[in-house]
Amino acid sequence: MLSGGSSNAVERVLITSTPFGAVDRRPLESLAQIGAEVRLNPLERRPTEEELVGLLRDVDAVLAGTEPFTAKVMDAAPRLQLISRIGVGLDSVDLLAARERGIEVCFTPDAPIPAVAEMTIGLILTTLRGVHISNINMHAGRWHRVLGRSLGESIVGILGVGRIGKEVLDTLIRMTPRKILLHDRIKDCGLALRVPDVEIEWVSFGRLLAESDVLTVHLPLTSDTSGVIGKEELFSLKPDAIVVNTSRGGIIREADLCEVLIAGHLGGVALDVFETEPYRGPLRGIERCLLTSHMASASVGCRVQMETEAAAEVVRFACSRPLISPVPESEYRRREVNRMSDQ
Amino acid sequence: MLSGGSSNAVERVLITSTPFGAVDRRPLESLAQIGAEVRLNPLERRPTEEELVGLLRDVDAVLAGTEPFTAKVMDAAPRLQLISRIGVGLDSVDLLAARERGIEVCFTPDAPIPAVAEMTIGLILTTLRGVHISNINMHAGRWHRVLGRSLGESIVGILGVGRIGKEVLDTLIRMTPRKILLHDRIKDCGLALRVPDVEIEWVSFGRLLAESDVLTVHLPLTSDTSGVIGKEELFSLKPDAIVVNTSRGGIIREADLCEVLIAGHLGGVALDVFETEPYRGPLRGIERCLLTSHMASASVGCRVQMETEAAAEVVRFACSRPLISPVPESEYRRREVNRMSDQ
Repeated sequence: MLSGGSSNAVERVLITSTPFGAVDRRPLESLAQIGAEVRLNPLERRPTEEELVGLLRDVDAVLAGTEPFTAKVMDAAPRLQLISRIGVGLDSVDLLAARERGIEVCFTPDAPIPAVAEMTIGLILTTLRGVHISNINMHAGRWHRVLGRSLGESIVGILGVGRIGKEVLDTLIRMTPRKILLHDRIKDCGLALRVPDVEIEWVSFGRLLAESDVLTVHLPLTSDTSGVIGKEELFSLKPDAIVVNTSRGGIIREADLCEVLIAGHLGGVALDVFETEPYRGPLRGIERCLLTSHMASASVGCRVQMETEAAAEVVRFACSRPLISPVPESEYRRREVNRMSDQ
Repeated sequence: MLSGGSSNAVERVLITSTPFGAVDRRPLESLAQIGAEVRLNPLERRPTEEELVGLLRDVDAVLAGTEPFTAKVMDAAPRLQLISRIGVGLDSVDLLAARERGIEVCFTPDAPIPAVAEMTIGLILTTLRGVHISNINMHAGRWHRVLGRSLGESIVGILGVGRIGKEVLDTLIRMTPRKILLHDRIKDCGLALRVPDVEIEWVSFGRLLAESDVLTVHLPLTSDTSGVIGKEELFSLKPDAIVVNTSRGGIIREADLCEVLIAGHLGGVALDVFETEPYRGPLRGIERCLLTSHMASASVGCRVQMETEAAAEVVRFACSRPLISPVPESEYRRREVNRMSDQ
């Protein structure tokens, strides 16, 4: 038992992210220590907004996946005091609505980094070589050789050089691609760009698109980044360029991507994230799309780390101890600015 | 034109490897310089032994793929003086038969290294995460999340630490897996095994199989290595182990692998090479097999490098200049020993 009394009364904890505790039960056991009733998501899949309304009625804290925490959901959750996000993206949470209702929000910004970066590198290497295309053909009985490209022949463009983009950069540097191009709204001059054997350059969005053989997207989904890669941007990529997106689906306009691919443009696309998930859209009909189901962070170690960190925040909250990773003030301010500019 | 006369009369050069000169015509142009007639493979696929007999009748030198250069083929090629292999594997050439007939054999041992190693790394990273399984399900309309493992959670076993195995080791070290195990017939004590952050150990074949989460195969196909991974070895791997083979198909017994996978053993297998190619066997029916069509060296840069080096050997031969990469004497001696022990 933890020492001291809980001054934030946490009687019921809902875990919407599913499966939870499947590999390591310790995050669940840590929640049991605070004496709260712990409820697992009965749907065993991501709830819709309507379903979430029903699930949160009498809940004090939630361990959240990527389901939508809108003002409407929060209004139907009068006891809700804490949203502890399992993961790094905050696009699913209306932060200003949460603050107005006194609901605290925390996340696990560092835990997903290694797994997402590693999956991204794997997707880049295999998509460059057409592995997914050959695999589909081989299973269909067709010996199908693809002449691809290696990293040493490729200019890799990183769009978004935050936590995950930096880790991808760090790994890529060690694999010596021909050149690395970086673009972000905020240039981080703290990055060491003088690396032996690899040329690295900050470039405009236009140059990033025009010069990259591989474009890998690592942006958060915000009102600024939503739909930032549309038809014009896709057509300004090289005809045989590869696009990899393990960040958020809404950043690339899917309908535009579909149109561009059907027109024969782009060598291949690896998408782990979609505008609407579960994804069942028309990209499924295009062989050179490598499609995975939002699982870049789904390694055992990463999953356990995220669950452990997110559950520990709930325990800290229940014991009135400070949270380790509350959403930073800068993120609330950014959303306030956007709300004002929208009005 | 090259200076000096050709003292090895090379009137006709056959290129069986196909496509050749597709990306860069310079290897073809270099052959034109020696004044020989250059014939491309009219079949546009790998010839069988019978077909090769017909193609080589009046040919002096051949730029060879992986088709079988048997004694029978050589007997039907009375003018053949040089087999210049595009690639590193020599299992397709009966070296002793070639020597008995005065046919020289050379290869391109270094050119494929970067492309094969990089493809191997990509296959390891994505197979560990079940990317190919999710992709097949997604295309079939099923949102299918796989909880996989990252390198940091995995013990990677390298079977065969020659040119390509060493390059895979070198890249893996920079990606910090949990541990690396090495096994080879010949322990190379020249390898630097003291690396910060990564534990590396030479182990027995038994320990390699028992302890690896990922087994990646980088052996040449010889009478010693043929079928070295059969049912017993496969069942001694961990139940969720991953096997990657970009070397030669004959090293893993395919029928045994199929049986073991159907029995539910192994987490996934990535095969780029098969006992008989083009492959159309029963592994095609198993979803967790990632199958590609012998294309680990098929990057544009690697392909051009191999074609350039192999063509340059033909040019050197025609000009009676020494070959850069004749098959080493040790390889002929090894085959002589094997032939004697077979008798």
